[in-house]
Amino acid sequence: MSNPERVAYFNGKIVPESQVLIPFRDRSFKYGDGVFDMTRTFGGRIFKLKEHVDRLYRSLKYTGIDIGLSAAAVMTITEEILERNLPLLDAGDDFWVAQRVSRGVDVVGGDFWQNSGPTLIIDCTPLPFKARAHLYRDGIDVVFPSVQRTPPESLSPNVKSHNYLNMIIADLEVRSMNPNGWALLLDTRGFLSEGMGSNVFLVKDGVLYTPKSQYVLAGVSRQTVIELAAELKLKLVEDDLTPYDAFTADEAFITSTSFCICPVHSFNGKTVADGKVPGPITKQLTEAYSDLVDCDFVEQYLRYA
Amino acid sequence: MSNPERVAYFNGKIVPESQVLIPFRDRSFKYGDGVFDMTRTFGGRIFKLKEHVDRLYRSLKYTGIDIGLSAAAVMTITEEILERNLPLLDAGDDFWVAQRVSRGVDVVGGDFWQNSGPTLIIDCTPLPFKARAHLYRDGIDVVFPSVQRTPPESLSPNVKSHNYLNMIIADLEVRSMNPNGWALLLDTRGFLSEGMGSNVFLVKDGVLYTPKSQYVLAGVSRQTVIELAAELKLKLVEDDLTPYDAFTADEAFITSTSFCICPVHSFNGKTVADGKVPGPITKQLTEAYSDLVDCDFVEQYLRYA
Amino acid sequence: MSNPERVAYFNGKIVPESQVLIPFRDRSFKYGDGVFDMTRTFGGRIFKLKEHVDRLYRSLKYTGIDIGLSAAAVMTITEEILERNLPLLDAGDDFWVAQRVSRGVDVVGGDFWQNSGPTLIIDCTPLPFKARAHLYRDGIDVVFPSVQRTPPESLSPNVKSHNYLNMIIADLEVRSMNPNGWALLLDTRGFLSEGMGSNVFLVKDGVLYTPKSQYVLAGVSRQTVIELAAELKLKLVEDDLTPYDAFTADEAFITSTSFCICPVHSFNGKTVADGKVPGPITKQLTEAYSDLVDCDFVEQYLRYA
Amino acid sequence: MSNPERVAYFNGKIVPESQVLIPFRDRSFKYGDGVFDMTRTFGGRIFKLKEHVDRLYRSLKYTGIDIGLSAAAVMTITEEILERNLPLLDAGDDFWVAQRVSRGVDVVGGDFWQNSGPTLIIDCTPLPFKARAHLYRDGIDVVFPSVQRTPPESLSPNVKSHNYLNMIIADLEVRSMNPNGWALLLDTRGFLSEGMGSNVFLVKDGVLYTPKSQYVLAGVSRQTVIELAAELKLKLVEDDLTPYDAFTADEAFITSTSFCICPVHSFNGKTVADGKVPGPITKQLTEAYSDLVDCDFVEQYLRYA
Amino acid sequence: MSNPERVAYFNGKIVPESQVLIPFRDRSFKYGDGVFDMTRTFGGRIFKLKEHVDRLYRSLKYTGIDIGLSAAAVMTITEEILERNLPLLDAGDDFWVAQRVSRGVDVVGGDFWQNSGPTLIIDCTPLPFKARAHLYRDGIDVVFPSVQRTPPESLSPNVKSHNYLNMIIADLEVRSMNPNGWALLLDTRGFLSEGMGSNVFLVKDGVLYTPKSQYVLAGVSRQTVIELAAELKLKLVEDDLTPYDAFTADEAFITSTSFCICPVHSFNGKTVADGKVPGPITKQLTEAYSDLVDCDFVEQYLRYA
Amino acid sequence: MSNPERVAYFNGKIVPESQVLIPFRDRSFKYGDGVFDMTRTFGGRIFKLKEHVDRLYRSLKYTGIDIGLSAAAVMTITEEILERNLPLLDAGDDFWVAQRVSRGVDVVGGDFWQNSGPTLIIDCTPLPFKARAHLYRDGIDVVFPSVQRTPPESLSPNVKSHNYLNMIIADLEVRSMNPNGWALLLDTRGFLSEGMGSNVFLVKDGVLYTPKSQYVLAGVSRQTVIELAAELKLKLVEDDLTPYDAFTADEAFITSTSFCICPVHSFNGKTVADGKVPGPITKQLTEAYSDLVDCDFVEQYLRYA
Repeated sequence: MSNPERVAYFNGKIVPESQVLIPFRDRSFKYGDGVFDMTRTFGGRIFKLKEHVDRLYRSLKYTGIDIGLSAAAVMTITEEILERNLPLLDAGDDFWVAQRVSRGVDVVGGDFWQNSGPTLIIDCTPLPFKARAHLYRDGIDVVFPSVQRTPPESLSPNVKSHNYLNMIIADLEVRSMNPNGWALLLDTRGFLSEGMGSNVFLVKDGVLYTPKSQYVLAGVSRQTVIELAAELKLKLVEDDLTPYDAFTADEAFITSTSFCICPVHSFNGKTVADGKVPGPITKQLTEAYSDLVDCDFVEQYLRYA
Repeated sequence: MSNPERVAYFNGKIVPESQVLIPFRDRSFKYGDGVFDMTRTFGGRIFKLKEHVDRLYRSLKYTGIDIGLSAAAVMTITEEILERNLPLLDAGDDFWVAQRVSRGVDVVGGDFWQNSGPTLIIDCTPLPFKARAHLYRDGIDVVFPSVQRTPPESLSPNVKSHNYLNMIIADLEVRSMNPNGWALLLDTRGFLSEGMGSNVFLVKDGVLYTPKSQYVLAGVSRQTVIELAAELKLKLVEDDLTPYDAFTADEAFITSTSFCICPVHSFNGKTVADGKVPGPITKQLTEAYSDLVDCDFVEQYLRYA
Repeated sequence: MSNPERVAYFNGKIVPESQVLIPFRDRSFKYGDGVFDMTRTFGGRIFKLKEHVDRLYRSLKYTGIDIGLSAAAVMTITEEILERNLPLLDAGDDFWVAQRVSRGVDVVGGDFWQNSGPTLIIDCTPLPFKARAHLYRDGIDVVFPSVQRTPPESLSPNVKSHNYLNMIIADLEVRSMNPNGWALLLDTRGFLSEGMGSNVFLVKDGVLYTPKSQYVLAGVSRQTVIELAAELKLKLVEDDLTPYDAFTADEAFITSTSFCICPVHSFNGKTVADGKVPGPITKQLTEAYSDLVDCDFVEQYLRYA
Repeated sequence: MSNPERVAYFNGKIVPESQVLIPFRDRSFKYGDGVFDMTRTFGGRIFKLKEHVDRLYRSLKYTGIDIGLSAAAVMTITEEILERNLPLLDAGDDFWVAQRVSRGVDVVGGDFWQNSGPTLIIDCTPLPFKARAHLYRDGIDVVFPSVQRTPPESLSPNVKSHNYLNMIIADLEVRSMNPNGWALLLDTRGFLSEGMGSNVFLVKDGVLYTPKSQYVLAGVSRQTVIELAAELKLKLVEDDLTPYDAFTADEAFITSTSFCICPVHSFNGKTVADGKVPGPITKQLTEAYSDLVDCDFVEQYLRYA
Repeated sequence: MSNPERVAYFNGKIVPESQVLIPFRDRSFKYGDGVFDMTRTFGGRIFKLKEHVDRLYRSLKYTGIDIGLSAAAVMTITEEILERNLPLLDAGDDFWVAQRVSRGVDVVGGDFWQNSGPTLIIDCTPLPFKARAHLYRDGIDVVFPSVQRTPPESLSPNVKSHNYLNMIIADLEVRSMNPNGWALLLDTRGFLSEGMGSNVFLVKDGVLYTPKSQYVLAGVSRQTVIELAAELKLKLVEDDLTPYDAFTADEAFITSTSFCICPVHSFNGKTVADGKVPGPITKQLTEAYSDLVDCDFVEQYLRYA
Repeated sequence: MSNPERVAYFNGKIVPESQVLIPFRDRSFKYGDGVFDMTRTFGGRIFKLKEHVDRLYRSLKYTGIDIGLSAAAVMTITEEILERNLPLLDAGDDFWVAQRVSRGVDVVGGDFWQNSGPTLIIDCTPLPFKARAHLYRDGIDVVFPSVQRTPPESLSPNVKSHNYLNMIIADLEVRSMNPNGWALLLDTRGFLSEGMGSNVFLVKDGVLYTPKSQYVLAGVSRQTVIELAAELKLKLVEDDLTPYDAFTADEAFITSTSFCICPVHSFNGKTVADGKVPGPITKQLTEAYSDLVDCDFVEQYLRYA
């Protein structure tokens, strides 16, 4: 049978994805009242699963949701779901692998806090190599929107929650003017924070800079770059970064689970240095990252460029 | 057949509620990327439907979602759904009537902004009279959490969106200390803003005060009170209100679609005046509200106290 | 002789404009250490000169510059300069008429505060009807930049000073993405403030709204609209306005000395209402403004569209 | 001929300073729409010219001005101008050497962004040793004004622009009460930032502290002190500094291009330690600085005390 | 016996003032953990005692102190204390009349919140007419310190508490530069707030302005001026006021319990209008105030000038 | 005679505590216009007296109070007072030892700044072992109140002043909901600051974190922990800490003069890790602290549990 369907874990069962259906009274549908985490595979091998699941449990603690499973159990299920779906992957492609949790379905007529208990979904999604190929070839055109990143005193950016409207609105603002623009939000103090699931790094005079983790979701890919920089004896500083720092950087790049490392071409239309990507330190880190994951992820994207 | 199921509108069809099932890749499930609006019935009669649907369209404009239907069409469908469900209502009870919109289901492998198009659900929910009856008898015990309301520069509080985690986290914080506490968030400047779907009013020396609409979702019930106050020749001021103002108020009450008007017993454990509820102006407004909607909503709740 | 040169007042003399030359050690060249004011003519008649000169003197007081002339003297000189230049104006055109003051030229080798005394220039500039004609036909496409308006605690926006880089940088940011975009800065609290020499008005449900004067240079044209609104019995509120208010307005327009009133077509790419300009209240105010100044300024621009 | 005139580079020519005259429609005169940089000589030798020109180019990038010359060319011209002017310097004196750029002269009747192209001036100014001699003898009396430093979200303090009114107004506020007071502005968060072209350092328990570069123009002299401290094995921390830190410091000093290092006598009237200047670490750094530049700059000032 | 001693109420007894002695473990001595209120007499007649005692009770509610007496009882005692002290007043002089409350003396070895119960003192203090006479003759020289008024999110300025260090430090800052300067603090947003027990009013174009009560202790004298303005048909606006508004006001004055109304001569060294005091509206209000209290309080002060 | 009274130093004399009586016109009683410092004994031996007295002198400098005694003299007197009181201490108990300063008694009828000169008190207080014993057994339940810590721009938190209402109000807010809750205030930016005389530490992945000293009173006990951590080769970072950091910490503890180190059981009802106290690093530091002071302070408390 051609083109069989991917499967997903759904509250204790493994079912075809099309059967993972959520009642409309689910709190994550109604309120985004849920959390998730997501890693990717490289050549079908899952990347830093433990780090991602640990972060999922921190998100669960913050939101006060108890899924009744240990982290180890979640990891085991995740690996099983991946194994079941790997045969469906096209050659040379890879998956996002996600755990998604909702607080559950509201009980009609009950108190606001009565619900049917948490929902857990674990699934795989093919990575969008084609749609993003041009970003590795040309670099990303980053734009600062006027919408500011939700501040930690309102909702911790360290929690990978299902509340993304702040970043979605910012992204739409940028795309209304430049369909290829990549929104990187400033925080409420005016410093660089993060984009949709992505962290930023600047390079200046051989030193790497990235925003402090109080104001962004400190991604696992970000952490990987920090560790690679240490191995490569590159100095790295977590600090408040201004638009001026971005405009006058020697190099810049974005990290995310899917991107790993992708170079920035410009900030608000000002090319980074002479506009050629990637810069030498970005290149050095990209190669170290590829070695670490034993996968030339840049080539994976550029196949489609 | 006893106990038939309520129906709901779901993307063009009217189906039993249990068939309103959302794919897990829906953006409102994953990101809270949707908006809604909600009114209630009084004796089965829908309240200010047009005002609520107009606000829904403002939320749609802000989020850039086009549902391809006119406001008039949405109103017609809403009325039909209500009519179909009214026979299922218990005597003396009433419904919440909601329109819920998601931006749609993400296309796997596509660009972030490719999706299958918006989803629209219109449904009825019986009001939780029993769970809330004691609040009318004793007054609400309001608590200010340390979590601050998401500021307008990050996400407009005027949009009734599916991103409620800020308020949910605040509510959980309050309930961790007082299970009956009602969270009323302070904004990032330290002034009273709003609670979960609810607005606050203070009374001092015969004048009514309520937070400015820049920092809260200016509810239709709030607007109804403003209009009733004008009819009753009560002075009303929209202003920045401090915890001090709350602690030293003569009366206070909460408004929401379901509550209409419900008196406040205390703020952070300090009783409002002598702690007896409702105060005279709250009572006067409650009666005017009941007259307006031709329904003694207080009695509707107190039946269960 | 065809095409004679306009003249200007320059520190006590009236000279051809090409002779108004400033030493490079002038503090306004080096630091923007100066103030100005500017009105326009309608059919060659100067508009509210006294109001503008009074504001110039408030700017002088704030900056501690004493030009050694009375306001009356400045008005007299201004009128003389206009009279001398009027013959050079093309038919149907009009002038900006400006007073410009610098604190003076720094004394080399002296203390920071030793200078040669203030410089005063009074001049006329033909209005750029052609370059702006399309804005009256199509409406202005307003964009909110990420750069925020300098806050009053750093430099009062009520002072019409020679320090415009904040707004220039914001304007360049917007134009880097949309060459026809008109930057309207948000203030450091996230509310609408002002653009380069321009104020904004929103119309919602028949009521006019404009930002409070603490955060913007409250222009004379803005004040004129406020007075016309009062005459037309239109309710007008000075308040903090959010991007949401802009996106959901029924109409919007910009006021400035040169524009008088010019309709807004969109905010951040979201069309105002159905995108047709001007809206009915904008039209009503435009006509009242034209009557007041006895000049169809819209037609003056549209000649060139 | 006695007392010949200094020359300056002016848009491609070298002319006597008195011929460097700017049309009044120049954007730097009207709006402070320009940037500059400035170093000094020691014994006629120019100090860290490359560092200053590199910073000029960062300021040009931020403001989007293209002067059509390479940094190397600007350095060559600068050195030539200095050479031409050195014979005019009094014995024992030195020059400030500056590059000044304006975006250019506005085209009358054109669009806001049409101008005649950038203006570049390179010039020399004798240092004001006499006017400042007493500061080395007695120490500087620093005062915190109520005016707050323009925040980075409005205009980057890292750009050496022609917009100085924020600091000028602050300086005038301080001098209205103490003619010898030196304004050091607090930033909008209440921390020490910078004064007119000057940075501050505190010494406490043998450690040096200076404000973080996000909130100040990180001067080349500041950087020189940071490097000298490293050579002298003195610990140095860039951090947020409060007025309390200033009041309770053991020593304090100001750095600037002209000052190099000048001791602080008091903050807001509270003497630093016992009020004797310079303190031991300030002295140690001053001597190292003098060695580096091969010039006893303190003596250069004290000649006039 | 010449010069007998004033008496005071002290926890249930009336004793000579010198016997009102507080244990050093009293929480108001150790922490400023107390509140007070204070009115004055005019010709020996107490002014608006009820309004002041009502405010005292609001301060008690905010701080959670219960003195076990009714407001009526406190008023009765206050009047008795005044009556007992009136014979000691010099001719033409008047008293401040104060209620002072401490939370009580800490129990040694006990929990932080164990104390011996509240202390109440009611006393009279002769007004300092001589020390302040010159302020009525010359006007007050107001200075804005760099210290900012404690914001409402930290401690409500509406509470007349025993925590005055914020204002004392600000006052000392101003006096370190100008011994006659009167500190008026800016709030944390940069707007005018209040001085030590004093409110500010500006007059511009015939309209009165005073800061909003969220950011200041809304004094009874301030309220009296608001009521007198209404009687005199003077327009009055409570609003955010900037230093610019102060510098460009036509008139300005300070109100306080002891001052009633006292004109301002300058703000930060910039004279208000032409520097002559009082201005016409200040004069009009001063006369109305004198009529209201049946006492020429200006003359009372000027006797000593 | 059984149970003789402790003595205290009071303005030059040593007297029984009951004779340390403060006139009610003392500025510390009326305004909290004073400062203090406080250390404790271990087995009767005073702890880091010099560090505490040095901090007292920094507080005196900030507030501009001159007590006319050298730090050495204050230390000598302190030691004498302790020696005189030690015989009164119960076996196994210890003292707080405090210096308390008021600016002095206001002169009636004089200028605001005329007072009788500073008052100095030096005294001993038995530590409240019994009242706090349960905190060592169970851990502290920390709660974040909605009241925010007074920011440094209003009053430096580095000064140990007599103005504690901000923290007292916060403490009362927490205790109104949980009588055993320990208030830890967030600063005005939303980060963890401090509680009543107490600092907080978090442990995550073997690294210690504590808030930066700009926003808290950097206690001597906090500094002691920092030094012990260095000796134990534990990495320690002073940083901005969020509620998320607290909720997801592996361990947490509070330091204060009396506590030394006391473990945290929960933050806002979320248990730290599995809720068992103390965690391993807390234990290691506690033991090192006990060794340093040669006193098992935990046992001292647990005697009473």
